[in-house]
Amino acid sequence: MSEYQRPIRLGMVGGGNDAFIGAVHRIAARIDGQFELIAGALSSTSDKAQASGQALGLAPDRTYDDFRAMAIREARLKEGIEAVAIVTPNHVHMAAAREFLKRGIHVICDKPLTSTLADARKMAQAVEKSDALFVLTHNYTGYPLIRQAREMVANGVLGDIRVVQVEYPQDWLTEAQPEDNKQAGWRTDPARSGAGGSTGDIGTHAFNLACFVTGLTPESLCADIQSFVEGRQVDDNAHVMLRFEEGARGMLWCSQVAPGNENALKLRVYGSNGGIEWEQETPNVMRYTPFGEPTRLLTRAGAGAAGQPSHLTRTPGGHPEGYLEGFANIYLETAACIRAKRSGHVMQEQKTLPGLKEGAMGMKFIDACVRSSARNAAWISLK
Amino acid sequence: MSEYQRPIRLGMVGGGNDAFIGAVHRIAARIDGQFELIAGALSSTSDKAQASGQALGLAPDRTYDDFRAMAIREARLKEGIEAVAIVTPNHVHMAAAREFLKRGIHVICDKPLTSTLADARKMAQAVEKSDALFVLTHNYTGYPLIRQAREMVANGVLGDIRVVQVEYPQDWLTEAQPEDNKQAGWRTDPARSGAGGSTGDIGTHAFNLACFVTGLTPESLCADIQSFVEGRQVDDNAHVMLRFEEGARGMLWCSQVAPGNENALKLRVYGSNGGIEWEQETPNVMRYTPFGEPTRLLTRAGAGAAGQPSHLTRTPGGHPEGYLEGFANIYLETAACIRAKRSGHVMQEQKTLPGLKEGAMGMKFIDACVRSSARNAAWISLK
Amino acid sequence: MSEYQRPIRLGMVGGGNDAFIGAVHRIAARIDGQFELIAGALSSTSDKAQASGQALGLAPDRTYDDFRAMAIREARLKEGIEAVAIVTPNHVHMAAAREFLKRGIHVICDKPLTSTLADARKMAQAVEKSDALFVLTHNYTGYPLIRQAREMVANGVLGDIRVVQVEYPQDWLTEAQPEDNKQAGWRTDPARSGAGGSTGDIGTHAFNLACFVTGLTPESLCADIQSFVEGRQVDDNAHVMLRFEEGARGMLWCSQVAPGNENALKLRVYGSNGGIEWEQETPNVMRYTPFGEPTRLLTRAGAGAAGQPSHLTRTPGGHPEGYLEGFANIYLETAACIRAKRSGHVMQEQKTLPGLKEGAMGMKFIDACVRSSARNAAWISLK
Amino acid sequence: MSEYQRPIRLGMVGGGNDAFIGAVHRIAARIDGQFELIAGALSSTSDKAQASGQALGLAPDRTYDDFRAMAIREARLKEGIEAVAIVTPNHVHMAAAREFLKRGIHVICDKPLTSTLADARKMAQAVEKSDALFVLTHNYTGYPLIRQAREMVANGVLGDIRVVQVEYPQDWLTEAQPEDNKQAGWRTDPARSGAGGSTGDIGTHAFNLACFVTGLTPESLCADIQSFVEGRQVDDNAHVMLRFEEGARGMLWCSQVAPGNENALKLRVYGSNGGIEWEQETPNVMRYTPFGEPTRLLTRAGAGAAGQPSHLTRTPGGHPEGYLEGFANIYLETAACIRAKRSGHVMQEQKTLPGLKEGAMGMKFIDACVRSSARNAAWISLK
Repeated sequence: MSEYQRPIRLGMVGGGNDAFIGAVHRIAARIDGQFELIAGALSSTSDKAQASGQALGLAPDRTYDDFRAMAIREARLKEGIEAVAIVTPNHVHMAAAREFLKRGIHVICDKPLTSTLADARKMAQAVEKSDALFVLTHNYTGYPLIRQAREMVANGVLGDIRVVQVEYPQDWLTEAQPEDNKQAGWRTDPARSGAGGSTGDIGTHAFNLACFVTGLTPESLCADIQSFVEGRQVDDNAHVMLRFEEGARGMLWCSQVAPGNENALKLRVYGSNGGIEWEQETPNVMRYTPFGEPTRLLTRAGAGAAGQPSHLTRTPGGHPEGYLEGFANIYLETAACIRAKRSGHVMQEQKTLPGLKEGAMGMKFIDACVRSSARNAAWISLK
Repeated sequence: MSEYQRPIRLGMVGGGNDAFIGAVHRIAARIDGQFELIAGALSSTSDKAQASGQALGLAPDRTYDDFRAMAIREARLKEGIEAVAIVTPNHVHMAAAREFLKRGIHVICDKPLTSTLADARKMAQAVEKSDALFVLTHNYTGYPLIRQAREMVANGVLGDIRVVQVEYPQDWLTEAQPEDNKQAGWRTDPARSGAGGSTGDIGTHAFNLACFVTGLTPESLCADIQSFVEGRQVDDNAHVMLRFEEGARGMLWCSQVAPGNENALKLRVYGSNGGIEWEQETPNVMRYTPFGEPTRLLTRAGAGAAGQPSHLTRTPGGHPEGYLEGFANIYLETAACIRAKRSGHVMQEQKTLPGLKEGAMGMKFIDACVRSSARNAAWISLK
Repeated sequence: MSEYQRPIRLGMVGGGNDAFIGAVHRIAARIDGQFELIAGALSSTSDKAQASGQALGLAPDRTYDDFRAMAIREARLKEGIEAVAIVTPNHVHMAAAREFLKRGIHVICDKPLTSTLADARKMAQAVEKSDALFVLTHNYTGYPLIRQAREMVANGVLGDIRVVQVEYPQDWLTEAQPEDNKQAGWRTDPARSGAGGSTGDIGTHAFNLACFVTGLTPESLCADIQSFVEGRQVDDNAHVMLRFEEGARGMLWCSQVAPGNENALKLRVYGSNGGIEWEQETPNVMRYTPFGEPTRLLTRAGAGAAGQPSHLTRTPGGHPEGYLEGFANIYLETAACIRAKRSGHVMQEQKTLPGLKEGAMGMKFIDACVRSSARNAAWISLK
Repeated sequence: MSEYQRPIRLGMVGGGNDAFIGAVHRIAARIDGQFELIAGALSSTSDKAQASGQALGLAPDRTYDDFRAMAIREARLKEGIEAVAIVTPNHVHMAAAREFLKRGIHVICDKPLTSTLADARKMAQAVEKSDALFVLTHNYTGYPLIRQAREMVANGVLGDIRVVQVEYPQDWLTEAQPEDNKQAGWRTDPARSGAGGSTGDIGTHAFNLACFVTGLTPESLCADIQSFVEGRQVDDNAHVMLRFEEGARGMLWCSQVAPGNENALKLRVYGSNGGIEWEQETPNVMRYTPFGEPTRLLTRAGAGAAGQPSHLTRTPGGHPEGYLEGFANIYLETAACIRAKRSGHVMQEQKTLPGLKEGAMGMKFIDACVRSSARNAAWISLK
């Protein structure tokens, strides 16, 4: 067995039974055989931590109820974890990541970066001081067609970018959520989620995707955010106008109260020479229109897929890959970077993977939305 | 032959050879046999007026090169025109309409109302002083599914309206237009078109449609408008945030520089109980989602079309009706109102038909977009 | 007024109050101002004929209750009709058409040609003996994108045609129809409709469209036809396999018992170099795939519309035209042929317009389906 | 760690470097953590077998170049494989499966069952004599919405099934394939693939899916199959008409020469009370129309997903799952059956999983297509 192929030893913080995103991270880590989950602090409640670890087949002595204890011990073990996935509510991200980063354990952290700007600054320090990798799972950047879109823009296929329309509507918070909805619970609690509701949970994804594909530098935004459901403490809908340094303008809409939308992230980019349109719910096709010519349907791994990185696609065109595969692509590239790091190399992919910089920009985005809206949609700088 | 069925005698101002919207009005007037075009001042250039009149089969003595002369003479003729369609560039609307209105001739005027706010005020006076009808062809309100959408909102099917997303992207002005493009010519000339470019030409349609369907009262807007093509004197892209008195919020995007979009007017309305989505390019279907249930595809004249006015549909479901039929519905209802007026009645339809009020609101919209953008996207009242 | 522009004087047989297809023909004749309806034998019931004529504004002395009387008198009048639209149930087509054809009055006849093969032969004789035009309204050939598709095939863009998939599902006869459904009434009565049910009513359209676009010569078919609804006397579903002389193979499915389908005519053609796909319910777009390249979305009057005849399109791309405009294109080209005939010319369009040949082939199609099915889906020659 | 959770020890026959379907099976086995691949006879070429095993991290002593040797040794090992995936070209299926079955090792075999009817009979004997499970990866039955469709039909939601339309077009064999195309190589070689080309490779999937969802019993078929590409030895296009014992009729079309189609498996089922439509390339949505009501869009894990088995879905609605997840569902249910078997139970899922019966029916389908076509599309019994 080649060193390259040995699965990377992975731990997880958060993601106990019933958590949504923890299970997603585990599948994403497992699907390509690049990681093996061997340790976890899956819950801060001891009983639940044990039960969750057992359900996942973790050894009892690799099941923790405290992430700091896990970091300390795993760092000392000869076969300790090499990387950790942090999938807790947002307010725990920083403290957890710091413990692993300072011990040289690579961190794969769910977004947004943290729940507060103060935490974000501490996270930045921790990342900068560490030699370990820090990857933030802005998973939508993992879709092959999104990579192709980024390539097309970078290569000037669309000409000068003028207009960026991005939206991310959902409907699951249309009504006040039941007390026992674990997902809705922490996501609508500002103490655990942060000041942003929809802006933090999904707006950051939309904002990140727009920046990732266009390569533009956000200059400022103005926002009008709302909490339509009575008693809700965070925003559930946000209207945002964007300005980019290069002259392009954009709109961003995120909502969790738009009935009929499940997870309808959509990006449209228009330049002087052409336009592209892509929707996350049908991620295997992208519309591309060279100005003055018929629209082309570019497909994943299909004809016209020249710009797609072949290592991010597992099946031929027409065999739909979806959310989990896109998410797994972040893990796949992270694995390649970790392996490269072992032998002292830095891979090109490392620049593409979302990390601290993207996380910090996401935090600025949330903060700017909240502050802009409080000032009647005044423009707030993002620099 | 019943009095009801005798076609209404129609004249036209503007719409000479090669004009786009004049031909559309003529088809819309003709398709249901409710109007007969018998007179025209189709161009202010005498030769062209004659040639255009001849091509349309108008009698030479009913072919004018001056709308005022036409209004004076037709008003005196025993069998003079009963109604006139005004399809000139925007800056002529007011002066032309005034001549016919003051002589009791019904006016069907293309949008926007006028090219300036000053003209809009004069138009208002002319309409208010006249006993004749004044209809503004916000033709997209004529689509049967748009009528059903309006009914659904009015009947509370969607609950309290929270979010209104409307957009109207096109791509035909992506590049600087050739000198000889007649359409682009006056539409991008502020002297003839007005201060708004895309805002006036298509933004007013989008704004009108959002108001028509939701019945909400616009309170204010903030806008960031651009002229991306060098040398263009009017906006070719506009990002707008909307607030409604009832508490709903909205976004409006119009663009004429979005490659891949032909005429992609799209309206989405979300309330506390459900959402609807409709696109003009596929106007025979509307998505309706009662919150918590699967999305329904409502079709024109299909199952679930209960709320559609049967007099606005000509064929069974699955036999697509389009832009011209939607436009014709405005003419059809105008004809009914004119016939009712003859016998001293006012029809219910008259309240639905777009007219002075909608035109004035459209002018406010353009003006507010321009002023807001000049003040760095400050909120401007629409009251 | 130029001779060219004077509307052609039109009469109508059938199409009284409540008839579906009669109203469609009238709109199609009127929309472009090329015809004026001035006479009619709208019903064979005298009272209904009068009432229907009055509702349409026909003069009482041009309202007949007998098509033969109408043909005789109109042929003698100085300003008698020049053309007649025959929109009766199928079993009346032949007798009515014959009366007008033999008096030199052009005939525009609804499809299928007749209700029996014997009648079809008589119709052929009548057409061949007459100098007048005979047009059969296979209206789906009037769609601009269908014309482009035909051009593409003819020009070899798709290479050698191999596979033709055509289908025409509806659902309106899913249940036994109520006694008082006028449409269902005659269409499911073999005495009035002919031996074919769905095969005659819609299968002929599908078959005609496949032949029109591909230009292939049908060689034989085998069919399995069914009457799923108890008591129904004609087929309501048909499965057909097709062979063409040039070597291509095809499948045709028509059904009136397929819930969820309104009028879902769809054609797909695949050749050695590419494929096209078009659906009648969204007629303004066609998918075209050059083999090995991304699929293109060709739109009516949009980019890539080079092959579309400009005289068959009334509005720019993105302004959807539909069923009525497609139907009207048949009338528009008929008008051009009639005008050309006046001055002794034959227009190119006359070869494109569906007529006797297509009608005869449609009759063969119905007959072959019925006979093949009776012989356990044996192959029946179409030559 | 619970016994339940210990991954099942898996071997693989075939699937060496560059094989398409082997990689798919490995991901499907791995994604849910239910299987661990520990042995393989990945190629019959020794060097390639070793290289492939090494690339997958198999121990050298668990890497074989002969499936019989592998079966013998693994059956003796204390920690030998419990199940084997057979992903060779079709002509090897039987011989390989037999070796494992007779040693009590569960077999997961790619479709079609074998390359000849004679082999199919031997396979049947082997399966019947063995106590081990035999699963045939008709993976499209693993899609959650396909399960819901089956439930809906079984529960009578659609009423009596009348019409079944299934199609499976691809385009990758539109041209003669290059010599070095490994996939095309064996799939178009009758000695390795069997008598059927497109009928065996994809037609069997389509046929299986139609039967799986409807629960109908195929009675007979007639087929017209073609090899459009010169020199091709197996069919690349097939038109098939189907009859079911219960009275329903169907059409099946499969093609590998239909440009613009990647992997466009599509199933439509119509009954007396409603219809459903599903496409594999957008597998997260299914159209359902109760007759006389608007079409519903049922989504995976969305509103209206009541009939979907929750254990076959990993993410909330709007997070698209695709081909690999559908495939993995077969492995997931297989794992559950294997675990149940250990403790002497039979699970309900075992009846749903495709196996010998489905494989035998698929072989009959291929054989009937070939024989029918040879007899000019005569009806061939499937009983």
